[in-house]
Amino acid sequence: MTAATMRASVLHSAHDVRLETIATPELADDQVLIRIAAVGVCGSDVHYFHEGRIGDFVVEAPMVLGHEASGTIVDVGAAVPRDRIGERVAIEPQRACRVCDQCKHGRYNLCPYIEFYATPPIDGAFAEYAVIQADYAFAIPDSLSFEAAALCEPLSVGIWANQKAGTGPGSRILIAGAGPIGIVAAQVARAFGAAEVIVSDPVQERLDVVLGFGATRVVNPVTEDVAGLELEVDAFIDASGAGPAVTAGILSVRPAGRVVLVGMGRPELTLPVSRIQNRELVLTGVFRYANTWPLAIELAASGQVDLDSLVTGRFGLQDVEAALESATQPATLKNVVIPDHAA
Amino acid sequence: MTAATMRASVLHSAHDVRLETIATPELADDQVLIRIAAVGVCGSDVHYFHEGRIGDFVVEAPMVLGHEASGTIVDVGAAVPRDRIGERVAIEPQRACRVCDQCKHGRYNLCPYIEFYATPPIDGAFAEYAVIQADYAFAIPDSLSFEAAALCEPLSVGIWANQKAGTGPGSRILIAGAGPIGIVAAQVARAFGAAEVIVSDPVQERLDVVLGFGATRVVNPVTEDVAGLELEVDAFIDASGAGPAVTAGILSVRPAGRVVLVGMGRPELTLPVSRIQNRELVLTGVFRYANTWPLAIELAASGQVDLDSLVTGRFGLQDVEAALESATQPATLKNVVIPDHAA
Amino acid sequence: MTAATMRASVLHSAHDVRLETIATPELADDQVLIRIAAVGVCGSDVHYFHEGRIGDFVVEAPMVLGHEASGTIVDVGAAVPRDRIGERVAIEPQRACRVCDQCKHGRYNLCPYIEFYATPPIDGAFAEYAVIQADYAFAIPDSLSFEAAALCEPLSVGIWANQKAGTGPGSRILIAGAGPIGIVAAQVARAFGAAEVIVSDPVQERLDVVLGFGATRVVNPVTEDVAGLELEVDAFIDASGAGPAVTAGILSVRPAGRVVLVGMGRPELTLPVSRIQNRELVLTGVFRYANTWPLAIELAASGQVDLDSLVTGRFGLQDVEAALESATQPATLKNVVIPDHAA
Amino acid sequence: MTAATMRASVLHSAHDVRLETIATPELADDQVLIRIAAVGVCGSDVHYFHEGRIGDFVVEAPMVLGHEASGTIVDVGAAVPRDRIGERVAIEPQRACRVCDQCKHGRYNLCPYIEFYATPPIDGAFAEYAVIQADYAFAIPDSLSFEAAALCEPLSVGIWANQKAGTGPGSRILIAGAGPIGIVAAQVARAFGAAEVIVSDPVQERLDVVLGFGATRVVNPVTEDVAGLELEVDAFIDASGAGPAVTAGILSVRPAGRVVLVGMGRPELTLPVSRIQNRELVLTGVFRYANTWPLAIELAASGQVDLDSLVTGRFGLQDVEAALESATQPATLKNVVIPDHAA
Repeated sequence: MTAATMRASVLHSAHDVRLETIATPELADDQVLIRIAAVGVCGSDVHYFHEGRIGDFVVEAPMVLGHEASGTIVDVGAAVPRDRIGERVAIEPQRACRVCDQCKHGRYNLCPYIEFYATPPIDGAFAEYAVIQADYAFAIPDSLSFEAAALCEPLSVGIWANQKAGTGPGSRILIAGAGPIGIVAAQVARAFGAAEVIVSDPVQERLDVVLGFGATRVVNPVTEDVAGLELEVDAFIDASGAGPAVTAGILSVRPAGRVVLVGMGRPELTLPVSRIQNRELVLTGVFRYANTWPLAIELAASGQVDLDSLVTGRFGLQDVEAALESATQPATLKNVVIPDHAA
Repeated sequence: MTAATMRASVLHSAHDVRLETIATPELADDQVLIRIAAVGVCGSDVHYFHEGRIGDFVVEAPMVLGHEASGTIVDVGAAVPRDRIGERVAIEPQRACRVCDQCKHGRYNLCPYIEFYATPPIDGAFAEYAVIQADYAFAIPDSLSFEAAALCEPLSVGIWANQKAGTGPGSRILIAGAGPIGIVAAQVARAFGAAEVIVSDPVQERLDVVLGFGATRVVNPVTEDVAGLELEVDAFIDASGAGPAVTAGILSVRPAGRVVLVGMGRPELTLPVSRIQNRELVLTGVFRYANTWPLAIELAASGQVDLDSLVTGRFGLQDVEAALESATQPATLKNVVIPDHAA
Repeated sequence: MTAATMRASVLHSAHDVRLETIATPELADDQVLIRIAAVGVCGSDVHYFHEGRIGDFVVEAPMVLGHEASGTIVDVGAAVPRDRIGERVAIEPQRACRVCDQCKHGRYNLCPYIEFYATPPIDGAFAEYAVIQADYAFAIPDSLSFEAAALCEPLSVGIWANQKAGTGPGSRILIAGAGPIGIVAAQVARAFGAAEVIVSDPVQERLDVVLGFGATRVVNPVTEDVAGLELEVDAFIDASGAGPAVTAGILSVRPAGRVVLVGMGRPELTLPVSRIQNRELVLTGVFRYANTWPLAIELAASGQVDLDSLVTGRFGLQDVEAALESATQPATLKNVVIPDHAA
Repeated sequence: MTAATMRASVLHSAHDVRLETIATPELADDQVLIRIAAVGVCGSDVHYFHEGRIGDFVVEAPMVLGHEASGTIVDVGAAVPRDRIGERVAIEPQRACRVCDQCKHGRYNLCPYIEFYATPPIDGAFAEYAVIQADYAFAIPDSLSFEAAALCEPLSVGIWANQKAGTGPGSRILIAGAGPIGIVAAQVARAFGAAEVIVSDPVQERLDVVLGFGATRVVNPVTEDVAGLELEVDAFIDASGAGPAVTAGILSVRPAGRVVLVGMGRPELTLPVSRIQNRELVLTGVFRYANTWPLAIELAASGQVDLDSLVTGRFGLQDVEAALESATQPATLKNVVIPDHAA
């Protein structure tokens, strides 16, 4: 029997996050109730904390942040087999409508009715419990840690980006940005068989780190003209959101190659469209992911991608503010909230 | 026996085009010699005439313009069957190397060694004769006029754009620009089965014309906010090269839809990348075309696309300057150079 | 207020179909209740009537046949907008689970848990009423007859087959079998832009008919060696289920072309695999369809496909046996059951 | 200066292969002359040796066998840079016409005019020298042995098969046949990221071997009912050519999965087409390969695929008959002909 209330870290408005006792979420027939074990801190959590909004999404009522989550199923809805109770799971933190045209074509991440953890007004997972539809809670093997299971979420972004990039055996890939997404994208590129994974970032420390996470070569745009290297890569994945990096990346792609924009920066960017035209480059973006968790778990459990080593800080629910504040420090790769972590 | 010399319209530098007698082009073993019957005037011809260059391509030596061409084979190289002499043909005006990686993958239009009619230093077809590799001269049925055969070149651009746009039965397509390329793109969209073809252009006369060439609806961005219409089309084809039109077009595409940039404008444009990301739009450009002539001839010969009605002016070789000068007049859809056309 | 009971034609076992009064189907929250207007008779209905089974699907309890259906929404479940009452609709007669891996990839027709009208033990539409999930009931324009709306079901098979065949502008398509599916496949091929649609059938009367429904050429395998014609088509669609027709079709496809098996015949066939290998043909089959109704309605409503002319017989619920018995007569193209049709 | 004559192993008719001195092949302008270093013995060589023909290809004049070849460029045609002399190369042993429709679409392996080493009447590489078009001779790194370079040919078959199978990260693949092609296909599947590679073969010794070359699991159809295992793999690759193996493989594929037929057996096979239809499987075959050598060299040079360990016998030109005779012995994986190998 689950308690009617739980502890949760609640964001009231910008810079106002409080540890509170709130109602445990109600369990619908097709859902599972998960006792949260670990939740990664994402840049979007930090953005909501500092700004109270991301673009058109505004925090207008108290809300729980956190969408990179794992835990253990402790209760199930009426339509879910009871033997799932006790299962260790990684959570895909979205709920699609399943009936719209996008959903029925298999592009449920583009569902106009989607609900996503920690996107107003949907609560996330910086809490003792969270609910999700049963098919979005994926069993993980014993060998996979809860922290790695939580980080299957950013890993999914890296998978989705590489799938759109067409990364495959022998590919040459350029990635801009050596933050957590750039790092997982680099690891995924290698796991997908890429022969060369070149990562650019203006922060030398990050470049040093990413060399241990899949990069075969690093470039610092402060000291090198990336476009001038004429890398002629098969695909460019932007995980920086920075205009100059995007331009340099596009200029680095061979004819008929691909450009995938992952990093969120300014809503508009000036792009070298004549190069896109003359080389018939194919440019697209990623919006979350679809159907990536099984592969994410496979890559993490098989050791092809190392998620555990990304964790550089652990915080209890009472320290979510500290987790958010320190997330952008240079030495931080990934902060993780562990609900019952001691202060 | 072909004469050693021929009449040709030669561009010496910007605004300096002269009718001259020059050597008839030499015929390589794998080529055919074509007596030119009709040559469309393209915007790029006009641009070379006015500016003496397009981007990095500079007219540094006298050159013959014209690349939308048709005619009759009058001689063949040693490796070409002699019974092709007498054949009426549409010319695909490019020569790929056939051995590079792009060529061997079927993307010969992206061959880095390609030679293209009327792109310095390669001569085009404003002349009595031109040569092309035998497999780039396509036999046309008797029912197809030489003028329509010449215009299989812009038609190929429209085909290539629609293929990249994924236009198919039931598609809803937005096209920006109602010039010759916009018009053929609209006709091709309909021939590909599009249910709706919406064309935008700030010139009302052009909108009136395109309604007769495949458009099911027209929009004037001067008086209507195109993006505000929330058209939610399956694909947007830009045939304008204008930044605001491109932005409005991108904002009009449904999630997972496509954007194809055909029009050549400024080398850089500011694009709404957050929309490309949030909707996972796929954006690309066209660089000429590959393997389109058989379909172009099929569409034109079957009447699914009307090319003859595009011709609004006819000029002899002695009047190429007039053909170029009048090409941009509002009433002009397509000027055609007919080498032996009377003054 | 819908009556608690309704008239329905109930199949008890092979050759035993009875007009009975049974309970009106219950309406789930996400469903609509449809007063049936027209139902096409399909070969599978006839097969169940004669054999009491199709392969592993056995009629073990009384069941209503009929899955090509249209009608008017007369009631809606709690989760469906009430203003849909009164809507004229075409029914996609399947219910996918929406949560399995196939569903979430957009291939819901391959859902292992799918329920399909008139496939034991699911009731079909030879009745006054039927229910379906709201998103599988598609509004039709006033211009579309209920009979044509019902025949959007076989039309969907033709669409799905042509999509898998890659039929497009200029395509050359061979279709074996000039029954209802062959006829709609031929019409769809033309609507998709095919330049040539060659149909083979051993019954000359059928060939004469199909010439009026999209075929550009017909071939009778009784008098002509189809493979010997070396048609070199882009794709072959089998709508016959006959081994020799499938073999001849495969031998007629150009290198890298496609083969789509629609017709259900024997569970095993002897195929010329060396030809599939040497030409790298791509062979597949169709299992119903997914996401085809919007296009089916578009093609029928726009007149690109003529469904009304396929109807050669109309029967009331009391005459379903006659409808099934006469379905295979040579002069029958498509029998339609109209519940309140006078005897 | 290359000698006018060379030693070669010449097949005159079935079972009649002789070491002879014949004219060194003439070098066309676009070709390179290669001093052969190693040539793998393929099943097709053995077949020509025993039968004097394969299907419609009949040895009607003396011919040199051998098409899995590597060596050093010793001379170049007029159109080839002279600095390629001295280059160590792997040979792609085919010459496409480059101008037909298949070639211009990037499917040059399906070129109807293709010439292929050791396919009558084209000479192969069991000789001191051979010629090939310069772009079909691929430079290899110093780290790659000549034997491994020669075996990039069967490796290319494995690559092409896996590309058609859609093998990727996390894939589950079934391969029938643990001969050389099955072994390279298994290794490629792993290199492409497959999570499971299940190989079936009736010969236990072969199964033991393939466990060291990429297989994660082996199945012996003599003792296990492969179809009964309900493997539900993503793709099945047949490298056996055996009817029962093909049927069992098709029955093992999940809905929407793929079937790739590589093994050459009887020209016709009886296949479970109802399963292909009900699951919408996609079945195709491979005919050689296109554009695979760069990746083959990458996979071999990086150690992702082990080719050197496949070599179980080495023979000089004087011993080609012994190489052919022993190729089918159980202990043989791959015999290699080394022209100057001592007796």
